Amino acid sequence: MDTFIEPIGRLINEFSKLPGVGRKTAQRYAYHIIGMQEQEALAFADAIVNAKKKVRFCKICGNFAEEEICPICRERDPSVICVVKEPKDVVCIERIHDFRGAYHVLHGVIDPINGVTPNKLHIRELVERIEKGNVQEVIMATNPDVEGEATAAYLAKLLKPLGVKVTRLSRGIPIGSELEYADEATLTRALQERKEL
Amino acid sequence: MDTFIEPIGRLINEFSKLPGVGRKTAQRYAYHIIGMQEQEALAFADAIVNAKKKVRFCKICGNFAEEEICPICRERDPSVICVVKEPKDVVCIERIHDFRGAYHVLHGVIDPINGVTPNKLHIRELVERIEKGNVQEVIMATNPDVEGEATAAYLAKLLKPLGVKVTRLSRGIPIGSELEYADEATLTRALQERKEL
Repeated sequence: MDTFIEPIGRLINEFSKLPGVGRKTAQRYAYHIIGMQEQEALAFADAIVNAKKKVRFCKICGNFAEEEICPICRERDPSVICVVKEPKDVVCIERIHDFRGAYHVLHGVIDPINGVTPNKLHIRELVERIEKGNVQEVIMATNPDVEGEATAAYLAKLLKPLGVKVTRLSRGIPIGSELEYADEATLTRALQERKEL
Repeated sequence: MDTFIEPIGRLINEFSKLPGVGRKTAQRYAYHIIGMQEQEALAFADAIVNAKKKVRFCKICGNFAEEEICPICRERDPSVICVVKEPKDVVCIERIHDFRGAYHVLHGVIDPINGVTPNKLHIRELVERIEKGNVQEVIMATNPDVEGEATAAYLAKLLKPLGVKVTRLSRGIPIGSELEYADEATLTRALQERKEL
């Protein structure tokens, strides 16, 4: 006998597709849905359909948008562009409430081993934005891993000849952590890029 | 400016309602949905609606069912009934592939402080099953916490006069764990209920 009846098994399968969700967690989620009021469950399903149907990519920066142009591109200073790997990275930077410029979402980083070459990323669109003028600085905010660093270096080489300032987020020991817990690569970088007090 | 556009914010809100899911995890799930193929996302939403519409409670044991009577009640030995708090506990016991009897799902445990009195649980239905005869043993498999123990004790008192054997899952040190990690209550119980070798 199957452990789950078909509708529950199917729902567990769907939840298992979410990132980091194993069978046990998926089961917990599925049982929670079945325990919901019908209206609540329908609202949940509708939110999925609605998000999938309404969310598209901003024509300028490539971030998620409901309209052709996202709210950030409509309202903010376009002379400073922060380049990130994915839409979720925009959320991270927005959360610090400190950056007033615009973004450019690459939708990936250069990773030749996995077949991601520069032409598969939204790089041409970035070059076009810069060629139109008005951009003064491009901040590379790709992750400080191998692919992120390579992508930042590649873009710097590509964009500098266009007469734009290219910068990179600083790397070093995270605020509030301890030296003891910093990995060697981070500590090496923190030492190399030490600042005078 | 809101961090999320409306359809994404709404989807994150829905995911936050799942047990143990905070804002950050909900955001990850929502972004994953938006990254899915449209057909996949629609299948996900449909699985929710489908489960909510098709799953009901077995008229005999109270477990989840598609039909009036669940597959376990249709096919298994009804003379031994294992009493559990919730449908998910049935899954736990089914997983050991050792129990061949039937179940009874209480849909909660007695918890007067939170307003759960015996009449709010599926106890009347259990008594009816026993009164119809043919039941030889009732195994109390409620959790070994205060409410679970109280419910087991309450039911034992209620059911024994009906001429049925009432048993309780044994409590003690979990197999494969170490004495060092057993809490005092478990250790006390393991000592009290020690077995002769």
